Order: sequence, then structure tokens, then C-alpha cells
Amino acid sequence: MKIMVDAMGGDNAPEAVVKGSLLARDEFGVSIVLSGKEDVLKKYIENETKDYRNIEILNAEDVITNDDKPVLAIRRKKESSLVKALHAVKNNEADAIVSAGNSGALLSGATLIIGRIGKLERPALAPFIPTDKGFALLVDAGANADCKPEYLADFALMGSIYSRHILNIENPKVGLLNIGGEEGKGNQLTIDTYGLLKNSNLNFIGNIESRYVLRGDADVIVADGFAGNILLKSIEGTASYIMENLKKELMSSFRTKMGALLVKPALRNFKKRLDYGEVGGGMLLGVNAPVIKAHGSSNSIAIKNAIKQTKNILDSNVVNLIREALQA
Amino acid sequence: MKIMVDAMGGDNAPEAVVKGSLLARDEFGVSIVLSGKEDVLKKYIENETKDYRNIEILNAEDVITNDDKPVLAIRRKKESSLVKALHAVKNNEADAIVSAGNSGALLSGATLIIGRIGKLERPALAPFIPTDKGFALLVDAGANADCKPEYLADFALMGSIYSRHILNIENPKVGLLNIGGEEGKGNQLTIDTYGLLKNSNLNFIGNIESRYVLRGDADVIVADGFAGNILLKSIEGTASYIMENLKKELMSSFRTKMGALLVKPALRNFKKRLDYGEVGGGMLLGVNAPVIKAHGSSNSIAIKNAIKQTKNILDSNVVNLIREALQA
Repeated sequence: MKIMVDAMGGDNAPEAVVKGSLLARDEFGVSIVLSGKEDVLKKYIENETKDYRNIEILNAEDVITNDDKPVLAIRRKKESSLVKALHAVKNNEADAIVSAGNSGALLSGATLIIGRIGKLERPALAPFIPTDKGFALLVDAGANADCKPEYLADFALMGSIYSRHILNIENPKVGLLNIGGEEGKGNQLTIDTYGLLKNSNLNFIGNIESRYVLRGDADVIVADGFAGNILLKSIEGTASYIMENLKKELMSSFRTKMGALLVKPALRNFKKRLDYGEVGGGMLLGVNAPVIKAHGSSNSIAIKNAIKQTKNILDSNVVNLIREALQA
Repeated sequence: MKIMVDAMGGDNAPEAVVKGSLLARDEFGVSIVLSGKEDVLKKYIENETKDYRNIEILNAEDVITNDDKPVLAIRRKKESSLVKALHAVKNNEADAIVSAGNSGALLSGATLIIGRIGKLERPALAPFIPTDKGFALLVDAGANADCKPEYLADFALMGSIYSRHILNIENPKVGLLNIGGEEGKGNQLTIDTYGLLKNSNLNFIGNIESRYVLRGDADVIVADGFAGNILLKSIEGTASYIMENLKKELMSSFRTKMGALLVKPALRNFKKRLDYGEVGGGMLLGVNAPVIKAHGSSNSIAIKNAIKQTKNILDSNVVNLIREALQA
């Protein structure tokens, strides 16, 4: 098993990416290919270890940044770490790819270079959201801003397979992100999608309102990429806003500072539960190899976890299971 | 100035609604008409006071509940507290209406009975979201699940007027809720709306991502009702999820309980800042009289605040200012 890692992608690249990759190699026994500038990567590797076992470098002189326009960058930056990595996966030189870089470039690059599964119309980005009951899978988190009901039905199917095999949920509860609980609520897209899901073989539990997502009512949350992204980023933004402001309040007086000392371990526990880095990354469901988008701000632990998740995806053969389900 | 209050609407109606109305009368010197079952309302009033000055009752034998289908309920429940209240406002027997009941019924009832301003296509629900810098106005929070770019341009105009006159923000910054920062990001609706807003006379600051809403980057956040509702309910849901879980963590051991005692006042402060009840309610922008939707779970203080807000709206003549702006 060989996992390609875009070593130049992410706010803390390449240092955190290299470190996380080495940690993953040591802990999970996977082979890693780091794509990026060879001399730079060697320096970071050698800061950590002399041991090059199961670590290769795919030299790439160029980098796609967050300021690059995704499709244009994929077409023009042929020598970038991302484009070269994607071609290597396409050519079976590696089995999967992890990147914390430009999301749009990864998603469109994966679709253009690695390619969609069969006749699937739209691949979808599926990150996990930590909930009261474990994790909910959100499909789509932003790959497709405009959707048709049929896309959402595919998202539900792919999400169910992923949830079953990666989170070991026997019969994942599929909820449709909506602005009301009952059938008939929502916009035209969700009203039409409701009908498709109701008649599917999935464990469709109906609409789920955004306020109940964290309660863990659904295992798979189906949404168009626009609404899904609004949901995901609102949850992230609200959680970090509250934790930051709480910290300020706790540091506001001598009394609260004393209290803060006592509650600190509990707060740390709780913060960890909200932390996306603990979960790994979002998988792009519907392309011909596992493509995992790690959070842009990933540290080395988050990268390590994303690689672990990629290994699980390969072990479970998720891509083939999705291919078979889509053909059926 | 006479404010109509649907005394039967809301999770804590009629008790909390009656109490809040009496508080508002005493504190702000407004006249209140309570619509609902006369004998029931009299009982609740007399529990509080013998003083009927500036308190009238509009007897209504029926009630629209949260289980009623909005448009159907407005058409059929002619004797409900809401329908009778809306007709009274339509007939100038009162100047504005506050309700904590069935949102859909209030919105469609207000549009059907009180009527839209001039040629405006779609009224929009505009609640305030507490942010780091005060309050942001969200337009639309759910009245219109499917929108055209022209609707969103109207929302931006109405929201700017409301923000200027009610929050006293000289030149409100208008942000378009979107899933990326730059022009060209988003779905077809936001891409087209961006063009309209860029060419308007409003203080358009571009796209705003949901994760930055609470930072207070925009004073007015423009969205279709589907995305706006997802945003609002995600923020509410995440905030209450975190505060509840935090409470659990703080009660988990002797040590944290001691700490909790010390940090309690700071937490209470912070919770108050997140509390929607402090803000009043959401105004339905674009109908011929002020229509204010208070939160379904409003207590008496939230009702009082919603009435105070309604008084401000009447004092500032917001409806006429919107009418003039839409004609221009």
C-alpha cells in the first residue's frame, strides 16, 4: 500500500506534512510518497530522521497555492506537487492521495485527472462532523455548489457505503439537510430529493435541521455543496468563536483565573472532541481512487490521522464498493 | 401607538406573552392589544395586575399551532388569534404585530392579509445575530426557500435601511453569504447576486463565509431563505450544544465543580451575549406594517424585548422608509 501525500499543500506545509507522514509511516506501516521540492523535503525529513524506509519523494518544482484558481491551476501548473501527485495515482504508482492544500484544485484535479467512477455525474466531498454520538458524515461539503436531486441521491448512496465501512455503522441513518422537519418543507431541490430518497433502499430518516446535526440524529447528512458548506463552516466558526471568547471571559479576573485552572483539563477534553484534526479529512467520494482532503490548518497529528483514515479506506476497498453500488 | 400581540403564539403562551406585554406597557408606555381567548387572557392578566390601562383584548376563540400547515391555517382558521390580529393591523386598528407562534403562518398570513409593499416580490425575515461587534442582520432567515438574484438585491436594500435606523449604523456593510471569499465563488444564485449588489448604491463588501459571521465582518448578511436558515440554526444549535456539554464537563468531578463556582458569573455573562431573547425578534421586511416574529421559546423578557423593538421600528418609521426606497 502506497499513499501519495502532497507535501506542499496546507498552511503548515511542508514541515507539518512531512512530520505527520513520518509519524504515519512509523505507526501504521504504510509507504508514503511525498510530492514536492526534493531538496526542501529532504531537509525536513532529515531534521526528523535518517530513516528513509517506506518514504519516497516525487520531485515537483511548482506549487499550487490557495490563491490559484482551481481549474486553471490544474491545467497550467503541470509541474506542481498536486498535479504530479494526481498523475502518479492515476498511473497506479500510488493507491491514494492526501492533500491539505487548495481544496478546489484538489477536487477538480481529482475529477479531471483520476476521473469519476463510471457514469456518476458528480463526486462529492465528505468530511466527518464530530457529534454527541460519534461522527456524522456530510455529503456534499462544497464540491458542487449547484445540484440536481439525482446528484443528492448518489451522495446518499456513496455516503452510506463509506459510513458503513469506515465508521462500522451497520445501517447508517441518512438525513436530508433541510429547513424543516416534515416532508414538503424546504426548497425545490430538497422537496424533489426527499421523494428520491424515500423510494431508495437506503435507511432514509427524513429531513434533518441544521440545529440537530450535532445531536447526532443522522449518520449521513445529504446536502448540496452550497448548503453543506454553510453548515460545516457555521459549526466550525461558532465553535471556535465560543471557545475563544470563553477563554477571554475566563482570563478576565483573578477569580475566574483561579476557576479556569480547575476546569482546564475538562475544557481541554471538550475542545478535543470538537477538533476536526482528530477525525482525519474529507474523502472525495466518486472518483477512481481515494482522495482525502485534510483541513488547511492541519498540524502533523491531523496529517497523520488523515493518512490513517486513507489506510482504512484502502483496507476496506471503499472505492470498489462504491463502484459496484453505482452499477447496481 | 398600539401594538398587537398574538397572545396564543409560542411555547410559553399565553402566560409568558401576557407577562411580557404587561412589562412592556409599564416600561415603554405602549398600548397593547392581546389577541386570544378573552377569559383565559383575563385570568393571566389578573394574576399580575388589576391595571387594565393601555391593555385591550381582541377575543379570538381559535388558535393556530405549530402543527398547522401555514397557508391552510391562515385560510381556514378565521377565528384564530393570529388571523384576527393580522386583520386588525390591516384595518389600522393596531400599528404592528408581534407573534412567537407558527413562523410560517405568521409570514404567509402577513403577506396575504397585511400585504406586500408596492411591487416588491418577496418579503423576507430578518433576525439579528449577536456578533463580536454588536449585531448582524440576516436577510432572509427562511421566508423564501427558493430565490432569484433580484429578491436578494431587495433583501439587501431593505436590510440596510432597517440596520441604519434600528441599530443606528450609518452605512451598514452588506455581505453576501457565500462559500468562498472572492467574486465568482458560489452557486449560480450568489454569482448573479454579486453582480447586482456590486452595481448597487449599497455598501457592498463582497462575500462573507459562514465561519466569519460571528466575527461581525458584515452588518447585513444577505442570503436566500434556505441558506440563511441553515446558517442561523447551525449557529444556534452549535452554541446550545457547546454550552450544554460544557455544563456537563464542569459538573463531572469535584475539582471542576469547584472551578465552575468560580467561573459561573463569567459564563453567565457570556451566555447572555449569545442569547437571542435579548435581541427581540425577527422583522418581516417588505409588508405594509411592522410584523415581528419572536422566538418560539420566548419567555416574558424576550416578549418584552420584542415589543420594545417594535416600538423602535414604529418610532423610526421603517416601513415607510422601505416603501420610499423601493419606489426610488
